[in-house]
Amino acid sequence: MAENRGVVYMGPGKVEIQSIPFPKLEDPRGRKIEHAVILRVVSTNICGSDQHMVRGRTTAAVGLVLGHEITGEVIEVGRDVETLSKGDLVSVPFNVACGRCRTCKEQHTGVCLSVNPSRAGGAYGYVDMSGWIGGQAEFVMVPYADFNLLKFPDRDRAMAKIRDLTCLSDILPTGYHGAVTAGVRPGATVYIAGAGPVGMAAAASARLLGGAVTIVGDVNPVRLAHARAVGFETIDLSQDASLSDQIAQILGTPEVDCAVDCVGFEARGHGHAGASHEAPATVLNSLMEITRAAGKIGIPGLYVTDDPGAVDPAAKRGSLSIRFGLGWAKSHSFHTGQTPVMKYNRDLMQAILWDRINVAEVVNVQVISLDGAPSGYGEFDAGVPKKFVIDPHNMLAAA
Amino acid sequence: MAENRGVVYMGPGKVEIQSIPFPKLEDPRGRKIEHAVILRVVSTNICGSDQHMVRGRTTAAVGLVLGHEITGEVIEVGRDVETLSKGDLVSVPFNVACGRCRTCKEQHTGVCLSVNPSRAGGAYGYVDMSGWIGGQAEFVMVPYADFNLLKFPDRDRAMAKIRDLTCLSDILPTGYHGAVTAGVRPGATVYIAGAGPVGMAAAASARLLGGAVTIVGDVNPVRLAHARAVGFETIDLSQDASLSDQIAQILGTPEVDCAVDCVGFEARGHGHAGASHEAPATVLNSLMEITRAAGKIGIPGLYVTDDPGAVDPAAKRGSLSIRFGLGWAKSHSFHTGQTPVMKYNRDLMQAILWDRINVAEVVNVQVISLDGAPSGYGEFDAGVPKKFVIDPHNMLAAA
Amino acid sequence: MAENRGVVYMGPGKVEIQSIPFPKLEDPRGRKIEHAVILRVVSTNICGSDQHMVRGRTTAAVGLVLGHEITGEVIEVGRDVETLSKGDLVSVPFNVACGRCRTCKEQHTGVCLSVNPSRAGGAYGYVDMSGWIGGQAEFVMVPYADFNLLKFPDRDRAMAKIRDLTCLSDILPTGYHGAVTAGVRPGATVYIAGAGPVGMAAAASARLLGGAVTIVGDVNPVRLAHARAVGFETIDLSQDASLSDQIAQILGTPEVDCAVDCVGFEARGHGHAGASHEAPATVLNSLMEITRAAGKIGIPGLYVTDDPGAVDPAAKRGSLSIRFGLGWAKSHSFHTGQTPVMKYNRDLMQAILWDRINVAEVVNVQVISLDGAPSGYGEFDAGVPKKFVIDPHNMLAAA
Amino acid sequence: MAENRGVVYMGPGKVEIQSIPFPKLEDPRGRKIEHAVILRVVSTNICGSDQHMVRGRTTAAVGLVLGHEITGEVIEVGRDVETLSKGDLVSVPFNVACGRCRTCKEQHTGVCLSVNPSRAGGAYGYVDMSGWIGGQAEFVMVPYADFNLLKFPDRDRAMAKIRDLTCLSDILPTGYHGAVTAGVRPGATVYIAGAGPVGMAAAASARLLGGAVTIVGDVNPVRLAHARAVGFETIDLSQDASLSDQIAQILGTPEVDCAVDCVGFEARGHGHAGASHEAPATVLNSLMEITRAAGKIGIPGLYVTDDPGAVDPAAKRGSLSIRFGLGWAKSHSFHTGQTPVMKYNRDLMQAILWDRINVAEVVNVQVISLDGAPSGYGEFDAGVPKKFVIDPHNMLAAA
Repeated sequence: MAENRGVVYMGPGKVEIQSIPFPKLEDPRGRKIEHAVILRVVSTNICGSDQHMVRGRTTAAVGLVLGHEITGEVIEVGRDVETLSKGDLVSVPFNVACGRCRTCKEQHTGVCLSVNPSRAGGAYGYVDMSGWIGGQAEFVMVPYADFNLLKFPDRDRAMAKIRDLTCLSDILPTGYHGAVTAGVRPGATVYIAGAGPVGMAAAASARLLGGAVTIVGDVNPVRLAHARAVGFETIDLSQDASLSDQIAQILGTPEVDCAVDCVGFEARGHGHAGASHEAPATVLNSLMEITRAAGKIGIPGLYVTDDPGAVDPAAKRGSLSIRFGLGWAKSHSFHTGQTPVMKYNRDLMQAILWDRINVAEVVNVQVISLDGAPSGYGEFDAGVPKKFVIDPHNMLAAA
Repeated sequence: MAENRGVVYMGPGKVEIQSIPFPKLEDPRGRKIEHAVILRVVSTNICGSDQHMVRGRTTAAVGLVLGHEITGEVIEVGRDVETLSKGDLVSVPFNVACGRCRTCKEQHTGVCLSVNPSRAGGAYGYVDMSGWIGGQAEFVMVPYADFNLLKFPDRDRAMAKIRDLTCLSDILPTGYHGAVTAGVRPGATVYIAGAGPVGMAAAASARLLGGAVTIVGDVNPVRLAHARAVGFETIDLSQDASLSDQIAQILGTPEVDCAVDCVGFEARGHGHAGASHEAPATVLNSLMEITRAAGKIGIPGLYVTDDPGAVDPAAKRGSLSIRFGLGWAKSHSFHTGQTPVMKYNRDLMQAILWDRINVAEVVNVQVISLDGAPSGYGEFDAGVPKKFVIDPHNMLAAA
Repeated sequence: MAENRGVVYMGPGKVEIQSIPFPKLEDPRGRKIEHAVILRVVSTNICGSDQHMVRGRTTAAVGLVLGHEITGEVIEVGRDVETLSKGDLVSVPFNVACGRCRTCKEQHTGVCLSVNPSRAGGAYGYVDMSGWIGGQAEFVMVPYADFNLLKFPDRDRAMAKIRDLTCLSDILPTGYHGAVTAGVRPGATVYIAGAGPVGMAAAASARLLGGAVTIVGDVNPVRLAHARAVGFETIDLSQDASLSDQIAQILGTPEVDCAVDCVGFEARGHGHAGASHEAPATVLNSLMEITRAAGKIGIPGLYVTDDPGAVDPAAKRGSLSIRFGLGWAKSHSFHTGQTPVMKYNRDLMQAILWDRINVAEVVNVQVISLDGAPSGYGEFDAGVPKKFVIDPHNMLAAA
Repeated sequence: MAENRGVVYMGPGKVEIQSIPFPKLEDPRGRKIEHAVILRVVSTNICGSDQHMVRGRTTAAVGLVLGHEITGEVIEVGRDVETLSKGDLVSVPFNVACGRCRTCKEQHTGVCLSVNPSRAGGAYGYVDMSGWIGGQAEFVMVPYADFNLLKFPDRDRAMAKIRDLTCLSDILPTGYHGAVTAGVRPGATVYIAGAGPVGMAAAASARLLGGAVTIVGDVNPVRLAHARAVGFETIDLSQDASLSDQIAQILGTPEVDCAVDCVGFEARGHGHAGASHEAPATVLNSLMEITRAAGKIGIPGLYVTDDPGAVDPAAKRGSLSIRFGLGWAKSHSFHTGQTPVMKYNRDLMQAILWDRINVAEVVNVQVISLDGAPSGYGEFDAGVPKKFVIDPHNMLAAA
């Protein structure tokens, strides 16, 4: 029980499975924290934002234990924990949040003011997020456990849906946050930029929210084929037909009610020429074109303050050339930031348990072993339409 | 073309088809109104609130032309109408609204301040709603047409879905308003009081809004059987098991997140003894019991200011014995009133046109001829699980 | 330091100052709680809802230590408390809340699901609120201190405004909650039922929220005189002129935009005849008359589930004869429940510290000693226009 | 009566008073519109956005009659107008809106879909806003008068406050919209970028909304002096101390809760060096720095789709170099667009009539004659802290 293994970042393009310390009830500065629990990791997913680090697009240090999408079983409980017991199955929001600061009390757990001394917001296994150890491992520690953890009401019912429930830690709430902030409601026409897992989760969310039609755009043909297979309209952005023309072909009008950016700062250009190179403001600029006047644009896709690998000096500092005047002329609003998972995960758990959303199918969950993680990272980076879920204790394989 | 026939209230329990005047571009006080149009009625539904009048529970005068759920084709256009042309297919919100007063500008079209000199809010073919002539007829006049009418984007596509679209004039928005004001969102557990058409429309709406599970309660076994057949959980209130116990059997907890009163003032008691007699506050009181703390209660079911046929003197003045202290202890909020149809009908039209809601199936639309209206009224009053849709020009039969 | 004295309920009409145990870091069931702190009470207010108990209108047991409006200085800190230190000055929301349950996470701290085994919601020194010991004392214990307590940013600045800041524990947020849920915003016309301290706090809140004109109604002439003296319009409900007529005289129209019930279940009738006897639904029914169509009614005034001293059997069970049909006809919504203080207290603290609200003057704070509490209870019950603030350690007197 | 004179744009830097046609009940394409009225202009203000045209920063054609801030008296009424009569005093929202399209029904009257064939949204006397004739004149025509016009309830009471009420057509709602969309509420700390009239109106609005402290920043010392004189904190951006340091000096923390951009695309840089040259993204970028995590940024300041006079080719197309990654890291939202005046003007009229906001004093209204308009344009362009109000019929001078 005192052993542990995890996925460790070893430099650009390289992750390894290594022995790592068994977690303690301690914060990153070594202080004892009685509000924490230790989890046996039931499942832990590879995220697109892990890729930013692994590609070397961040300042992540070699040795970082990765993983912020965690579902687990409680195996050790701090003194101050009141609502959890050993054996409970729980979903861990990727945001580390204290539940005691102003922003947490307002449900903005994505920008907790306490858990990260250098900026608002913490996360597990992530650069600049204050050193909370990642959960792509056999065991992990979760602080402020009463506040952070979402307990599944029934173990058997949970294990029967574990491929879906594993999406509650990040990807499903993140896609949902994008859809909600874009104003998706029954009858809305919705455009989702990006057919990766976040985009697919946003599409599933738009459907759950009652959207009339959801269109997913990407330059990757296999991802688009998967999106069509699970019931969405698609647009191939590697083609030269403009996005608005392709939308008009589907809807009879070149604009949608709601748009969601599930791509972020590593966006590529559109069209035959554009798709081959990075153009970080492409998505934002195109969404202003195709969103109706008075519409909202949800932006769960990550934009960074510093991007050493960017294509130009401005983008290295996080500055993008945005056609802001166009959005202003259309009275758009823009909604950014890390998803406050806790605002949504209980609702989405219920939607999963009552069969209202098939997110595992939509994002195409692929269960792999812990030792399979490095190849999962590689495949994912190559653009396969899969969401890789690590199963460190073979509990999903057994389920 | 100068002839017209309509459904006329002839006294308690009696409606007849009679010749009535062909509509003019005139308001109820005989003033010319150039903002109006005349419609050929494509479909017009019998509503539960029509029954209140026909049962003699109101002060409706003999001779009233009934009908406020209207879908039509524009055949004549006033001078001030800008956005509509002959041949357009339109849905008519049951609220008559001016679009120019304070409440209309705020989207509260259910309580327009202009169209009814005696109180806020107007409607077609309804007692105390200022004499706008009803639309259970071959032709009808609609004032403030640019503001009031929802135009279907494509005639053929509309006629293919006309059994669903006919629900946009009242019943679907009314059920939806109940669900929305009750706070239904993805993952919510929902209880709907009443399995009549409004209750079923609320249930369909709760599903569209992403509700995890929707439970419909009634004392009528055939209506409950229909509710189950279209996919909802049900509770038989004629049984002696308490409502909260029956909810606990389904959900594992005796409370729901959201509750909707689709019954209104003609409620009956619960249990073997109660179901046989009227008990007007039963539904409200039971909803406070089974709604979670901090929950909202949506009340689209009609409560009246004067009810001459009520069981006791207080109820005759619209006063009910409500266990308000219970709601207060649970921090409930209560949301009442005529549905502002315009707030929702465009969204719901889109949901219908894109196959996101099968409302005709859920409310069990039954198309009848104009001459069949009297027997439709009779069957509906007997409690069949059907929504009767009058087809005055045999356009639905032909579609 | 191990001694303590507090205000103890000794039966109908009787409170005494008695020696009581010095608080421990223990919950009402005797379990150690390291998330708690002990406070030296800086100020603690007598509340109208304390009067319900003292009048014998509840099932409160003899021996109950009263007091749920508490401001204090931290003198002892449990091991799991992270954000507070000895010497901090803090405001205590009257709701005891855990910060870890579903409703707390949603900011509904008035109906915390954890702190009271018998129903949602806990409070200090209050019947049926789970036995948390009251704070009309020298010292008191506060659980879940990191979550519950609002720390004042600067001790000197706080002590200079302590007569205002003492209102943050209950009365100001409660009046504000009433105004907010009634929809008060800039330009609104507002009617406040009740010129007691909650009503005056609601009036001050309506002004802070930008309300155009705020009218306070009561039957008590000295309270009305005070209301006028601090700048509000008033209506004397002991007169026979109807409420709507009196509103019309002020506004030129018989309805207001927003109405707030700051009276609750111990309401008296209106007019010369009515004012002398209890009529528990009077306020609710009159607010439906004078609130505009589509308006909201905020109800911070307490309504109870059981009222052994009520005027009729229905009211004993918390049932009132409410003219619900009138509210329905006007599309009203009704907003009830204990105020979730934490949702508002930080904002209101800032408004006080920056001189935007003179709540102490408006509610007419009267500082008294702990030994003066019994006579404060008596005076308050007699209807003086004062808010009594107990100063157990002579810190306010010194400030 | 058949004569008219107005302020006409005659090329960069030049406006003249000329004879212009007396208005007709006709739209810009010459069609008769019976829903219109003709107004005698009581007052009409010079707006900062007029300056964009007059400076030659737009494609406005010579001969354009300027003026979109209009208050008037109805002197002629189209046949389809129902709620207005000759002699009514009215405020004209600067947005021309039809009241019949989807966005108008949703209260987004700033982007009406009907009144401008080339894009969403119309206005009087403005380039690219579809040719509705401006109101810096003796007489003007207003279409869709029942929908657009706000009638003052009492002529005498209105004339007594006319210097404030003249601000309802644009500047006050525009400042207020900025404050509202920035999330200003009681207790908020607020930063307003820009001490011109819109900035001052935003500051007055923040105060009305209960903001704890409002700080106005600018590079213009006389405007800052005026802002201080009417009670606001100020920051001199021509100094080299950073904005966040200057905020920290006032608040004790370098961030505010809410920020409003009242400058727009003609922004200048900060500091001694920066203040002398245009730097169009300066304001947006600085607001991300000083707005707290999870804060909102209201952007009533104008950003354009095409700016022929811009400092670089990107800005000529409306593209700005925005440090979007910073806003994203702080979970900001950004709210843009023309203010939908009708959403706010009735509330603000009430606030003025009941003495809750002294906007004329805060923006420093200066009444001038029609013939004085050219010199008013000149003075305003030079940066005086005044809001020029043209009084074409000497009605304000007489009031």
